[in-house]
Amino acid sequence: MIGGGTGAFIGAVHRIAARIDDQYELVCGAFSSNAENSRASGTLLGLNPERVYNSYRELFEKEKQLPEEERAQVISIVTPNHVHFEPARLALESGFHVILDKPMTFSLDEAKELGKIVAETGMLFCLTHTYTGYPMVKEARQIVASGRLGKIRKVFVEYPQGWLSSFEEGTDNKQASWRTDPARSGIAGAMGDIGTHAFNLAEYVSGLQVSQLCADINTVVEGRKLDDDGAALLKFKGGASGVLMSTQVAAGEENNVKVRVYGEKGGLEWQQSDANSLQLKWTDRPAEILRTGGGYLSSFASHNTRTPAGHPEGYLEAFANLYRNFALCIKARKDGKDPEPEWLDFPGIEEGIRGMAFIENVVASGKSEKKWFDFII
Amino acid sequence: MIGGGTGAFIGAVHRIAARIDDQYELVCGAFSSNAENSRASGTLLGLNPERVYNSYRELFEKEKQLPEEERAQVISIVTPNHVHFEPARLALESGFHVILDKPMTFSLDEAKELGKIVAETGMLFCLTHTYTGYPMVKEARQIVASGRLGKIRKVFVEYPQGWLSSFEEGTDNKQASWRTDPARSGIAGAMGDIGTHAFNLAEYVSGLQVSQLCADINTVVEGRKLDDDGAALLKFKGGASGVLMSTQVAAGEENNVKVRVYGEKGGLEWQQSDANSLQLKWTDRPAEILRTGGGYLSSFASHNTRTPAGHPEGYLEAFANLYRNFALCIKARKDGKDPEPEWLDFPGIEEGIRGMAFIENVVASGKSEKKWFDFII
Amino acid sequence: MIGGGTGAFIGAVHRIAARIDDQYELVCGAFSSNAENSRASGTLLGLNPERVYNSYRELFEKEKQLPEEERAQVISIVTPNHVHFEPARLALESGFHVILDKPMTFSLDEAKELGKIVAETGMLFCLTHTYTGYPMVKEARQIVASGRLGKIRKVFVEYPQGWLSSFEEGTDNKQASWRTDPARSGIAGAMGDIGTHAFNLAEYVSGLQVSQLCADINTVVEGRKLDDDGAALLKFKGGASGVLMSTQVAAGEENNVKVRVYGEKGGLEWQQSDANSLQLKWTDRPAEILRTGGGYLSSFASHNTRTPAGHPEGYLEAFANLYRNFALCIKARKDGKDPEPEWLDFPGIEEGIRGMAFIENVVASGKSEKKWFDFII
Amino acid sequence: MIGGGTGAFIGAVHRIAARIDDQYELVCGAFSSNAENSRASGTLLGLNPERVYNSYRELFEKEKQLPEEERAQVISIVTPNHVHFEPARLALESGFHVILDKPMTFSLDEAKELGKIVAETGMLFCLTHTYTGYPMVKEARQIVASGRLGKIRKVFVEYPQGWLSSFEEGTDNKQASWRTDPARSGIAGAMGDIGTHAFNLAEYVSGLQVSQLCADINTVVEGRKLDDDGAALLKFKGGASGVLMSTQVAAGEENNVKVRVYGEKGGLEWQQSDANSLQLKWTDRPAEILRTGGGYLSSFASHNTRTPAGHPEGYLEAFANLYRNFALCIKARKDGKDPEPEWLDFPGIEEGIRGMAFIENVVASGKSEKKWFDFII
Repeated sequence: MIGGGTGAFIGAVHRIAARIDDQYELVCGAFSSNAENSRASGTLLGLNPERVYNSYRELFEKEKQLPEEERAQVISIVTPNHVHFEPARLALESGFHVILDKPMTFSLDEAKELGKIVAETGMLFCLTHTYTGYPMVKEARQIVASGRLGKIRKVFVEYPQGWLSSFEEGTDNKQASWRTDPARSGIAGAMGDIGTHAFNLAEYVSGLQVSQLCADINTVVEGRKLDDDGAALLKFKGGASGVLMSTQVAAGEENNVKVRVYGEKGGLEWQQSDANSLQLKWTDRPAEILRTGGGYLSSFASHNTRTPAGHPEGYLEAFANLYRNFALCIKARKDGKDPEPEWLDFPGIEEGIRGMAFIENVVASGKSEKKWFDFII
Repeated sequence: MIGGGTGAFIGAVHRIAARIDDQYELVCGAFSSNAENSRASGTLLGLNPERVYNSYRELFEKEKQLPEEERAQVISIVTPNHVHFEPARLALESGFHVILDKPMTFSLDEAKELGKIVAETGMLFCLTHTYTGYPMVKEARQIVASGRLGKIRKVFVEYPQGWLSSFEEGTDNKQASWRTDPARSGIAGAMGDIGTHAFNLAEYVSGLQVSQLCADINTVVEGRKLDDDGAALLKFKGGASGVLMSTQVAAGEENNVKVRVYGEKGGLEWQQSDANSLQLKWTDRPAEILRTGGGYLSSFASHNTRTPAGHPEGYLEAFANLYRNFALCIKARKDGKDPEPEWLDFPGIEEGIRGMAFIENVVASGKSEKKWFDFII
Repeated sequence: MIGGGTGAFIGAVHRIAARIDDQYELVCGAFSSNAENSRASGTLLGLNPERVYNSYRELFEKEKQLPEEERAQVISIVTPNHVHFEPARLALESGFHVILDKPMTFSLDEAKELGKIVAETGMLFCLTHTYTGYPMVKEARQIVASGRLGKIRKVFVEYPQGWLSSFEEGTDNKQASWRTDPARSGIAGAMGDIGTHAFNLAEYVSGLQVSQLCADINTVVEGRKLDDDGAALLKFKGGASGVLMSTQVAAGEENNVKVRVYGEKGGLEWQQSDANSLQLKWTDRPAEILRTGGGYLSSFASHNTRTPAGHPEGYLEAFANLYRNFALCIKARKDGKDPEPEWLDFPGIEEGIRGMAFIENVVASGKSEKKWFDFII
Repeated sequence: MIGGGTGAFIGAVHRIAARIDDQYELVCGAFSSNAENSRASGTLLGLNPERVYNSYRELFEKEKQLPEEERAQVISIVTPNHVHFEPARLALESGFHVILDKPMTFSLDEAKELGKIVAETGMLFCLTHTYTGYPMVKEARQIVASGRLGKIRKVFVEYPQGWLSSFEEGTDNKQASWRTDPARSGIAGAMGDIGTHAFNLAEYVSGLQVSQLCADINTVVEGRKLDDDGAALLKFKGGASGVLMSTQVAAGEENNVKVRVYGEKGGLEWQQSDANSLQLKWTDRPAEILRTGGGYLSSFASHNTRTPAGHPEGYLEAFANLYRNFALCIKARKDGKDPEPEWLDFPGIEEGIRGMAFIENVVASGKSEKKWFDFII
């Protein structure tokens, strides 16, 4: 693991996600850019001190030299955005598979470069757009793909948070500090941090790609250096339209990402606050509520569920689904077998490049007087 | 009553709304442009046949001549949009107070003209933006006005319907027929029919006025003559921003108008499908659910409630609140008294003009390549 | 109308319910046992003073003598329980149809006596168990009757309120005063006031009759003279079992009556706080949400709905459905026609007798050391 | 681990729960009464084959002989009920701490005997009543204990499932097979399997102990050997009353355990289907919704939460909380430190004995003609 030392939120989440299905063992790490912190974190995590490194460069150099059976196979990178590309590149080029936190890189250029490296090295790559790990989100995608809703016409996606309603970066809130800092986050704040999740979720569930957008991007809280609020009108290839909303100043909101997709015959709705339900709405018959664990679900939903219906699975399980499917694919490759379609259903380099393109396009659109902005990669 | 003959949806709703609080008696009507239909409807409604008229012109002429104690005092106009202005004008100029269905007129020009006539005649005027009649919507407005949420930053309003997901105007659906017909509805379809409700609700609850918008307006169903779907990014005077969404092709949706407003300290959320609840969300303490009939509510909410908490009041009661408050104001004027502030809280000519301006601006923006469109009246 | 003077809750509700569908005109009343109050109420209601009576006896005497076309046809009795039987008896024997508030009488003996009088006089009789007026409750009954759930096994019904959590009868709360007074309410408090509603709802929806019960009846608030809380285990004819819960000391609860019925193949759930939804749950497929106004509903639901799906109808509309169906039956009789099955679907004398039997049996069971108490009428 | 071989539901859950917080390592097991199955399961779990045993007796014998640093410290017992007592006894007497699945034993006598053994050996003991591991259930308990609701008057607890609506034990459903078999489950079916959870939850949240009960116990599905449905009226020490409902034939229900507690001033409500919310209802002010991760929660809730508010934590995390707190207590003992109060908040031997007493009392009450049955241990 690169990053994720004491006090980091997402590092701990990654570690839990990796443990849940017992497919990973944490064997080494460079947990902080500060060598002392890295060692302290390694000790807390019970690692062999020899495999707690002072820097990610050291990690790759040393791990590469270990015998194959002993050395790390997968590198999780959970650092702030400005330290995504370089360790990912090194990891891939050193022969490690990579799990990388989103947004994929600091810039679209880096993202495209990373795409080439993944292609050249042939290593496996997973980007942690967690929401696509929920069983009912997978079901939603399958239902759209099956054509049951008819041709898709409308996509609404929203991600309202309220935790940046005041100037948190002026306090000792580490999360707020780097996420609002252009030097560490890149050109986008809310749009990069959660807008990319919303964008990914919209494309994943609808199976459509955004072709144009028109954005309103705002920095609401005084003194903040990046956007903390935004919305965009969307056009999809094939004619559907949509709305994306993503804000961190919706005071009182937690993390209620929600997606709605409507076709000719019906619509669907999923939201994280009721993550184990998927609502289908029909023009001519009663709405249906599909539930995690239901015997009537697709293999994509049931493969990603651990308990019978009625035992709520949450965010950590969704995260673990990414880890588990990635592990199954790695294992299949080692065993020389073809992975099942259900295992391959995790976000990768393509989603990462599109996510970075979203950031660059949405920010540019926000600043532009032009109404419709082509979604360029 | 003008319009609202057999088979009309909104006419029956107006009549129930007028009856609920026993402040009105239906005494005369011209229920249809077809004289025979008008008479048949009058008979069904148990009216004195002498006061069932062949046309609204006849109605005004004859009613004017009746002794004051006998003649109609208020005219409800519930015709399609193209027959709003002329009867309203005649009514006002003939000395009748007017209740008019939304959108107010066929065009903004008519609306402004009607504004002048209201001012000149001094008659009272009510526009039936029903949703502002809900007790919890009134409470929402009071909470924003009280400053409890802090300065308002963000307004989301949405009105998804699905009933026009197919080409209903090709069937014998009377509602679909006139609402999708430019000759009867005006330049807007969904944006006029329900977009104006959403717009009105956003301005009513937030207490803010839209200053700029950027719209995406679509005609999704093939063969349809007017828009059936749209969304707009909004800028409000004072710096808040927002999103308005209004569609009639969200297959499977009923009528779930919803508004969310966020300020510096908290946010609120109301939606028609749970009309008796108002959710307040705070950055630093648990969310609260305010309920119709709660002892802790403002006079604006409690004045508009008929039953103790826990007895759901619905759409008809919200509609009736407009009628009742209008009646109370008329009575106060007759009695030479000042109306209470709670009675005056119904939509009127100002809201009607802004609604028509919304239609014209949003349609123009939809066609424009310019991003931000000034909201011009 | 008998009772329902100024300050009475349920009288005003009856009047609104009667007005909503324009099938009734309030023509006379004896609104209070106090003649002055009665007259004052009559004035407020705009009645002809000659038809505002000092007592219900006077009302019947005088109204009987009026010409048939002029005199009252239906008497609504909305007094406290101890003034139910006598005016109802007089009304029926004087040739008036009767609408009576629940519980039907002061005692089971009175109820059975009233049953005889209804049979002898042949007049029509309606008891206002409001909850059976909700469209989705009617749908629930139809679904059970259709056999779609299979044979019924389990019935849960609950009616939690919190408004009597403190000694309200020690304040000037008129509602609390008579509802906790044995001289006016009879032998039961909560069990009579709301337990009978729960009991009626359980039998109505399930189509089954209670055969045995085992009750725990409590007076929780110190100084109170009647029960304010209770629960009962139920046995139904045919083998189903159930639980009834009804309390007025569930602090913070409003009026959330709820019923659940389970058969071999599925279950259903309805609750007043979401009155326009009916949930069906299945063992082998997704749950469904049926909604008021849905095109797929039975004639029993759609007959009792005024607006299209998505316009919430509430408690007053449910109440109005009782009034409307009763009016349709009266009209059918006058016209010498057979009423439609949908019109006949309102609670009557049979339900009233069973309700009073419930009160007597549940109170007796509460006091008994015997476990299973036969439900005796 | 004892039990939990391939195909067992709860064994896998225990293993995930143990892994989530990285406080346990699975080092040995006797996963099945069939030695071959045990070995196969051990292989799948990646255990050292030398520490996969043919029987739990062998496990204890061999593990005892290992050096302290190497041998198992905690034994998880996840077998059917008839194989709870003996391995638990042996484990404790062999010096292992024990985590045992509920219900604790096959009979109350065994339970009391186990209580003595725990006391004599001084080993630590945890019983997996999972629902008390949810952060918002812990918060509920704290709120009641704080007195904010006033003196508790009423407790409703319900646990409806539908999975045994048909004769599942006639199919190859392993879960149904042992849970309906008196030889493996004991004298109770639904009442033992989920009734004990409901009972435990009611006592845990209310802080009260049941003193009397009156039960209706049914075997609904033909051919079944144990109860599959039941309800009980409850009396608590101190005067509160309540209702417990627990059924496995509520067709269409998943696993929606729910508890409501009402005091003089307010009430609370929690249910597993919305596990991250806790509703507080008040007589005099708006209801509040407390949410997992909220900054305003007690240390008991926040100690048991892994992610910020808005990231749903589910059943597995609740289960993991039991494991984690147990581990923290074990570690504290090893370190010679006092455990924090939050760590000690897991169900143990006392809850296990009361649970078994519940089973015996509720079954006896179900068969008895006597109404109120003293809750005897």
